[in-house]
Amino acid sequence: MSSGDVTRGPIEGSTKHYLHDAHLRIPQRRVHLTNGDHLDLYDTSGPYTDDDAEIDLHRGLAPTRASWRRPEPVDTEAGHPAATQLAWARAGLVTDEMRFIAAREGCDPELVRSEVAAGRAVIPANHRHPESEPMIIGKAFAVKVNANIGNSAVTSSIAEEVEKMVWATRWGADTIMDLSTGKDIHLTREWIMRNSPVPVGTVPMYQALEKVKGDPAALTWEIYRDTVLEQAEQGVDYMTVHAGVLLRYVPLTAKRVTGIVSRGGSIMAAWCLAHHTESFLYTHFDELCEIFARYDITFSLGDGLRPGSIADANDDAQFAELRTLGELTKIAKSHGVQVMIEGPGHVPMHKIAENVRLEEELCEEAPFYTLGPLATDIAPAYDHITSAIGAAMIAQAGTAMLCYVTPKEHLGLPNRDDVKVGVITYKIAAHSADLAKGHPRAQERDDALSKARFEFRWTDQFNLALDPDTAREYHDETLPAEPAKTAHFCSMCGPKFCSMRISADVRAYAEENGLVTQDDIDAKLRADMEAKSVEFRRSGGEVYLPLEAVDRTAP
Amino acid sequence: MSSGDVTRGPIEGSTKHYLHDAHLRIPQRRVHLTNGDHLDLYDTSGPYTDDDAEIDLHRGLAPTRASWRRPEPVDTEAGHPAATQLAWARAGLVTDEMRFIAAREGCDPELVRSEVAAGRAVIPANHRHPESEPMIIGKAFAVKVNANIGNSAVTSSIAEEVEKMVWATRWGADTIMDLSTGKDIHLTREWIMRNSPVPVGTVPMYQALEKVKGDPAALTWEIYRDTVLEQAEQGVDYMTVHAGVLLRYVPLTAKRVTGIVSRGGSIMAAWCLAHHTESFLYTHFDELCEIFARYDITFSLGDGLRPGSIADANDDAQFAELRTLGELTKIAKSHGVQVMIEGPGHVPMHKIAENVRLEEELCEEAPFYTLGPLATDIAPAYDHITSAIGAAMIAQAGTAMLCYVTPKEHLGLPNRDDVKVGVITYKIAAHSADLAKGHPRAQERDDALSKARFEFRWTDQFNLALDPDTAREYHDETLPAEPAKTAHFCSMCGPKFCSMRISADVRAYAEENGLVTQDDIDAKLRADMEAKSVEFRRSGGEVYLPLEAVDRTAP
Repeated sequence: MSSGDVTRGPIEGSTKHYLHDAHLRIPQRRVHLTNGDHLDLYDTSGPYTDDDAEIDLHRGLAPTRASWRRPEPVDTEAGHPAATQLAWARAGLVTDEMRFIAAREGCDPELVRSEVAAGRAVIPANHRHPESEPMIIGKAFAVKVNANIGNSAVTSSIAEEVEKMVWATRWGADTIMDLSTGKDIHLTREWIMRNSPVPVGTVPMYQALEKVKGDPAALTWEIYRDTVLEQAEQGVDYMTVHAGVLLRYVPLTAKRVTGIVSRGGSIMAAWCLAHHTESFLYTHFDELCEIFARYDITFSLGDGLRPGSIADANDDAQFAELRTLGELTKIAKSHGVQVMIEGPGHVPMHKIAENVRLEEELCEEAPFYTLGPLATDIAPAYDHITSAIGAAMIAQAGTAMLCYVTPKEHLGLPNRDDVKVGVITYKIAAHSADLAKGHPRAQERDDALSKARFEFRWTDQFNLALDPDTAREYHDETLPAEPAKTAHFCSMCGPKFCSMRISADVRAYAEENGLVTQDDIDAKLRADMEAKSVEFRRSGGEVYLPLEAVDRTAP
Repeated sequence: MSSGDVTRGPIEGSTKHYLHDAHLRIPQRRVHLTNGDHLDLYDTSGPYTDDDAEIDLHRGLAPTRASWRRPEPVDTEAGHPAATQLAWARAGLVTDEMRFIAAREGCDPELVRSEVAAGRAVIPANHRHPESEPMIIGKAFAVKVNANIGNSAVTSSIAEEVEKMVWATRWGADTIMDLSTGKDIHLTREWIMRNSPVPVGTVPMYQALEKVKGDPAALTWEIYRDTVLEQAEQGVDYMTVHAGVLLRYVPLTAKRVTGIVSRGGSIMAAWCLAHHTESFLYTHFDELCEIFARYDITFSLGDGLRPGSIADANDDAQFAELRTLGELTKIAKSHGVQVMIEGPGHVPMHKIAENVRLEEELCEEAPFYTLGPLATDIAPAYDHITSAIGAAMIAQAGTAMLCYVTPKEHLGLPNRDDVKVGVITYKIAAHSADLAKGHPRAQERDDALSKARFEFRWTDQFNLALDPDTAREYHDETLPAEPAKTAHFCSMCGPKFCSMRISADVRAYAEENGLVTQDDIDAKLRADMEAKSVEFRRSGGEVYLPLEAVDRTAP
């Protein structure tokens, strides 16, 4: 595998830019505008978009965090020391990771520390993943997006999985989950870990199940624990653990329309039924916490009983498990271990807010990490959209990270295009929520793009977009020539007529006449309407030449 | 133009089915399931999806409504008679149109009459469009979707526009707006009217502007009125009229990021400034009402000052105009004329509900008809998605009809694929809102599809989807063979492992053991856990054969 296997170079119209804070170098994506301005954006893409960076997939990314200051472990309530961001935050320490994050988010490092200390935010950063650029998941910060990748012997190679990781982070994935199964699972993960600039999550159960040849009944705590240790050593930053699927909850799913749809959840349900014993993930949870505390692995407590259909949303099985996740959250935190909580799934819009309310109540406001939810079941092939509706709403209500859904959900495996569409769609949901929550600086990008649109700076409009390439391609389908990029019109209303031009005339009229406040405007209008009428007709009137045959997508 | 120019035949897996109510024949789409069941769906596609229907585009569709009973005109407050659904509803009459609609919606005809009488719903049905299948727009009914089409001398012919109409209604468009400009505008509309099974809306101003060679200052009331009469005679069912753009509101837009983005709004703003006179649409509004009352044309009072960016949402200009639309609503209703109100546009999520609240307060709950709104400005090329988020939310809050947005919004003209993606995306938003509002029967389709999914009835899952063709295509990319359509697995988890199978085992276990209520379950679990453990391991255990190399899109 050579570095030629992955996508390199900046996104169109941008260059890599670094903020410096002592020994920290914080990456940003700088979008260069044709009017001489620029806009700096949060950048998840790592060195791959830096033309000056050397990339060697065999060597992996530079282990930058290895040289950062790491505080001593801190004693915890549970009685053993924890070397975690949570333990340090509680001890009042601002780590380099927190400082790096504060610069990325444009906030005070103390906000980062206090949110982590409160358990309202997590920084997934295994000590053994020094290649990662720290990021934070918490409702006080920008909403984050996770993209799932994972190999399959049939459909992809290790090189393809590494490229999928690079590709997903290029378009804005804040974390990735490696859901690989099958052969080469360890090696695939090693390649991903060493080359990933973002935190990596896994579901250790998948590999544990491989070790027992896919028979859930043959699983044991020891096999699972050793798998966790193996992945911990590789540097996995957060792990999904379905420890809330208890034996007594399984029958609650019997009358559901879609039963248990989580793979991890169904494995544990099968194990519990086969042994009629409580889940070993639950009974050995303290031991798991001790491992996680050593590496600073973050729990992503899985919702194994999440609803798989509108009919099953917010039912007894789902909320019984959530209550147990709340208990486990307290235990993990007593060990100094960071925790986030996974959420559904399929939920109609009117039942979305209740999920956040209950999660916050039961789980001490631990960051919520939801899959969609899909707001309806009736659109397979468009579930990135059905779920973006739910995702935007649940993020507005307080969800901190959104797990993307691709157009192939329920139907097949996502290809490269699906991964991009999934990530872009989820960046839309996350950003819409940031706007709705009044996140500082979120609206800067909307304003810059809309201003470019109004001023007919087409190139700037493309380059400020989440996907400059597709925006440009769609524009060029009807007006391909380069001069059209600076034209004061578009194919929708044609060259001789455009509402934006009239607006510009209105603005010019207001400014020429000193109409700044509403009082100015009213006074002026009353004072010299007729005189201005003549003037306007003479000057602005020329704008309205004969209307050619044109079209427009809205009245 | 021959009938070979348009798409014919039912959607995959369905046939046309008719409900009969006296002389009325109400179309439905019947989806046939492989388990012998069927599901009947609301059908907007007209005779084109009926294999038994004769289609001759030159003759047009059968003028079915011409033979229906039309009550006598009714006197109105304004002093002249109105032959409108509103006037008849107020007089206590249930028209054939209302009865037809009640059968389509699955509700009582009296609900239709009373909602129309209250002005909370409209039935756009010009007497001169007898080919249409009546439908209703109101928040007590299923949320509706409008698709815009419109010719352009450069890019499309009349035949293409008719096909776009057929294509849009095939996928679920409840109304279409013909936004044609340029030459052949009258003829294009004539073809569309005579062949459209759904109500057709227009913006008469576009044609009026053609008549004055694109110079807004040259417009007059007389030219506009004659254009309205011309289109009324052709059978246009509803017309967008930007009568709320008053002279004194224009300067309110001067400090906006994106000024005036509505084409109709900008034309009137230019006219008002050029003449320093109040808008002729406003000053002649009563005369317009008299025309509309004769044909039963529904007002779609345009939001000429809608925000074109997140920055401009809910500003003084927008809400000043809305207040004026409220005044005009009262005037129209006093003439017995039906009214709906157009809404934005670009609105961040936290400002969406306020739009509905204010519209209902100011406009006596007249049906709201919104364009999206887009929840962020930063994703040109994905604005069907940015706007589906806003559309679903505003529909949940009470919007009765959603105007679709295609992926080409802001960039170019939608092609056939864009029209389909736009309609499907908006059906998702509308249906999600129906679920959230608890609309009777909405969840039937979700449940049927999810049940099919759980039971591995792949073909049924496809056929119940909004877009069976694309769902099937995506599935077949990884598992193309016909036997895979009945396989108890999919490419996501592979043939030997599947959470759905475990669920089926859990269910079987519960049913075999008479576990119906939670009490049964608890008692049984306590009673004979150990015995069942052995049994389950022996029977269900066989399900879990070695896990092949597989992948999955979520943990």
